Amino acid sequence: MESGALPPLDPQHAETRSEDRLVRAIREAARRIPSEARTVEFGDDLASIAADSDLLWSTDMIMAGVDFKPGEHTWRAAGRKAMAVNLSDCAAMACRPVAALLCVALNDDLSEQDALEIAIGATEEAARYACPIVGGDTNSWRAPTAIAVTIAARPATKYGPIKRADAKPSDDIYLTGPVGGSILGRHMEFEPRIELAAQLAERLPIHAMIDISDGVAIDLHRLCESSGVGAAIDATALETVTHDDARRLAQQTGKPPLDHALFDGEDFELIVVIPPDQDAVAAQFPTLQKIGTIRPDRNLMLRQPDHGETPLPRRGWEHFQ
Amino acid sequence: MESGALPPLDPQHAETRSEDRLVRAIREAARRIPSEARTVEFGDDLASIAADSDLLWSTDMIMAGVDFKPGEHTWRAAGRKAMAVNLSDCAAMACRPVAALLCVALNDDLSEQDALEIAIGATEEAARYACPIVGGDTNSWRAPTAIAVTIAARPATKYGPIKRADAKPSDDIYLTGPVGGSILGRHMEFEPRIELAAQLAERLPIHAMIDISDGVAIDLHRLCESSGVGAAIDATALETVTHDDARRLAQQTGKPPLDHALFDGEDFELIVVIPPDQDAVAAQFPTLQKIGTIRPDRNLMLRQPDHGETPLPRRGWEHFQ
Repeated sequence: MESGALPPLDPQHAETRSEDRLVRAIREAARRIPSEARTVEFGDDLASIAADSDLLWSTDMIMAGVDFKPGEHTWRAAGRKAMAVNLSDCAAMACRPVAALLCVALNDDLSEQDALEIAIGATEEAARYACPIVGGDTNSWRAPTAIAVTIAARPATKYGPIKRADAKPSDDIYLTGPVGGSILGRHMEFEPRIELAAQLAERLPIHAMIDISDGVAIDLHRLCESSGVGAAIDATALETVTHDDARRLAQQTGKPPLDHALFDGEDFELIVVIPPDQDAVAAQFPTLQKIGTIRPDRNLMLRQPDHGETPLPRRGWEHFQ
Repeated sequence: MESGALPPLDPQHAETRSEDRLVRAIREAARRIPSEARTVEFGDDLASIAADSDLLWSTDMIMAGVDFKPGEHTWRAAGRKAMAVNLSDCAAMACRPVAALLCVALNDDLSEQDALEIAIGATEEAARYACPIVGGDTNSWRAPTAIAVTIAARPATKYGPIKRADAKPSDDIYLTGPVGGSILGRHMEFEPRIELAAQLAERLPIHAMIDISDGVAIDLHRLCESSGVGAAIDATALETVTHDDARRLAQQTGKPPLDHALFDGEDFELIVVIPPDQDAVAAQFPTLQKIGTIRPDRNLMLRQPDHGETPLPRRGWEHFQ
């Protein structure tokens, strides 16, 4: 590949930053290399490794001071979270983990025991899903600690992997559990929905799925953009799956609990999109809550009793802005 | 797994740090999860992903201020190096890359174009080996930029993957090219020896191989420890593959060029261990240079004309100490 072959970014964006735009630009650059491996589109929760294998993979990094706080959280808890966010990517495509790699940049102040605690936390979390850590990389530096995990996975059922790109107009939008206010503690302790996702995929003809890492609103935007559709979210329905933490946090921030339910990140519940004739089966999953509907136009709207329909902002936790 | 099941580190080491000891402790913790995937031992250059697949993988992170210098090196060069160190791990086991993931923690001062340059550098380097980047993770923070690449690979020949653990007494030890002084610039521009390793594996019954990431001495120590053997290195032979950069650097540091050939990191040439009856075939590879012999006892010795045999220190570039 000639280095001149890759175009610079659109100059009109030179002064601002956007994670999603950056990812699109990287994807465009990466797509210059032909590959049969991309049976799952770049930008989904997991990507195919090779065209002749059913293995998929993903990588996610967490960083001290951003995703966890040394002093407030233990190194074991940090290692646990680094693994759990990757396991959640497996859940998002109804896959089960196969193996993992652990890569760390350790702050110079960490003791060897601290470093080992990170590995133990990651190992314990992975062990819950029978996922061995089979390798990795250890580095150290003056800067804060960063922990990157790579995970390999396989579809949990014959219907997988479930992508985010196949939502259809009139489909129903469900959440797998309550959302909002995870910063009060749940963001360190969530349970990846691997088992639930596998059961859902077995019983329901799921069209699209994504895990809520950056917030209901922005992750639903991403799902809809991948699928070329829009959606309407029902605020009253969302209230029934607004976490108590969102209400508690709302008392501190002065914002409505609904804002925290829509725009807070790191819940790691799943957004599940299924055809509208599946109410009876969906009802057999007690944590599943319908919150809206997919629409053919590309707009995302919020339906509120007092305000009618208003555009749902494309907002949430966004790195790199 | 019960969290109490994993033992603390040996308390006698509580006050010091060692990368290799940490890796052993992590491996011990990780091995508590049974896995059929470990057909290649934890700690080799690549690890198996799954028992029923020939795919292997590895991850390596490089960090601003440690592995490259912003200002002195371009972001494109940093992205290139992040990919190249991972490609070198493929070469070390005579594998060819299949696909890669790119994971970044971007310093807040980087522009979107800077960030894209990292991806372009990684993409261009991967493209030379027909390796697509199929996914990744973008993060940003106040700390220096870290770039982690994960690579998946397959054996380049029916004889692979070539491990580091099967060196036998009387085997010859070869280098694929000159070493030392890479810090003068080569550490940013080296060529992963993927093609050469594939040809070597096709033509020679290689017993063990490793890439020189941290230095000839320490990486040979690691190969010998994995194989349960020792070695004798011939200083006169090593002089013939001491890079001119090692001599230039020696003039600055006042150390002998041999020190730089033995203890400098980031050459990314390969140490190749083959049976002693292969001289004629080995001679057909012009860059291959014999530098020593594997021995049954576990000691690593350096043979010098004036000093006889002295122990070869287990020293080199070592993170986390």
